[in-house]
Amino acid sequence: MKGIKPSWNNLIFVVSAPSGAGKTTLCDKLQTEFKDIHYAVTATTRAPRDGEIDGKSYYFMTREGFEKRLAEGGFIEHAVVHGNLYGSPKAPVVAALEEGCDVLMNLDVQGAATVRDTLTALPDGDPLKHTLVDIFVVPPSTEVLRNRLVIRGTDSLEVIEKRMKQAREEISHWKDYSYMVVNDDLAEAYDNMRAIILAERHRIENRREAYHA
Amino acid sequence: MKGIKPSWNNLIFVVSAPSGAGKTTLCDKLQTEFKDIHYAVTATTRAPRDGEIDGKSYYFMTREGFEKRLAEGGFIEHAVVHGNLYGSPKAPVVAALEEGCDVLMNLDVQGAATVRDTLTALPDGDPLKHTLVDIFVVPPSTEVLRNRLVIRGTDSLEVIEKRMKQAREEISHWKDYSYMVVNDDLAEAYDNMRAIILAERHRIENRREAYHA
Repeated sequence: MKGIKPSWNNLIFVVSAPSGAGKTTLCDKLQTEFKDIHYAVTATTRAPRDGEIDGKSYYFMTREGFEKRLAEGGFIEHAVVHGNLYGSPKAPVVAALEEGCDVLMNLDVQGAATVRDTLTALPDGDPLKHTLVDIFVVPPSTEVLRNRLVIRGTDSLEVIEKRMKQAREEISHWKDYSYMVVNDDLAEAYDNMRAIILAERHRIENRREAYHA
Repeated sequence: MKGIKPSWNNLIFVVSAPSGAGKTTLCDKLQTEFKDIHYAVTATTRAPRDGEIDGKSYYFMTREGFEKRLAEGGFIEHAVVHGNLYGSPKAPVVAALEEGCDVLMNLDVQGAATVRDTLTALPDGDPLKHTLVDIFVVPPSTEVLRNRLVIRGTDSLEVIEKRMKQAREEISHWKDYSYMVVNDDLAEAYDNMRAIILAERHRIENRREAYHA
């Protein structure tokens, strides 16, 4: 699709979810279906883990490199988590939008709030100024979420309780989003995710040009 | 789905299209997939044609019966076309909404405008007061539309020219709608139509209740 301008003004989709809600699986499926969406990769100063690929899992950066880029205004949003820096590099997002692609950003509740405020504050004509469509993916209940984390078996019960507390805090922000998808059945949740993307592309207010019959 | 309240406040979908854009085929497909949507049937005083079924194609009414119902405020909108009365009966729509169904109304540009104004003017608490989602289905171009009408072979060239003039007038109202679906490829147009329905059901502002995790 690169080079062909679509019929809509390109959109920035933001997907947030508490840990264990199935966001990664859903976004991977979107990536398989929608080749005309640019999937924004997060930059981080933390060390790569086994199997993580630079430029795909994350952009792995030195602290100096990250801080230099930050000082230059090179991140749309950034945060410090457990002493490591994380951020969304601006340049690949702007490049994708200028190529006529939509962008999908995978952000936590705090990151989504920052991007929302940043985009609103941008002056018209700024290359990053595009309509944001934010989607919150939630589990059917916190009990289901807890069960999923227990079954996954990667965390101790103590860590699970910490994740649950964080999940409840994140879920309390559900009203800040435009859409909410409850991930009970994966196929159904995916169908709803892709529906939101297709529908937004057909909203009159997102249309690039007038319709001349 | 009847009796089970869905997670969203029920919606009234309005679909309009110039003649030949493929609206009937698309709405028939929606009817096959979405059993939880009530497809509003239009009432008319014109005589049934071969193969038309009362209560499915139209509600066939006498002029006296129609006028009595109209005087009682029994229609959401009505119009006179070639001397015959047409209208959307209110009672089945209200009953469907109260049962927890969405409603789909198949209306021309004028009917859609009337329903839009009517719903806006209704006081909160009126059983008909629901969010309207209007979709305009258009052909890729008026040339394609003309070709479709010629190929269909049911109209004389004179009638086709009249339909084309009417189509151009209708198409000029595209900006009054929330969504526009260009019906170039039928499968793709259908995928977009169903996407709009699914997406609207997941908008936070259409959610029936708060999310309690």
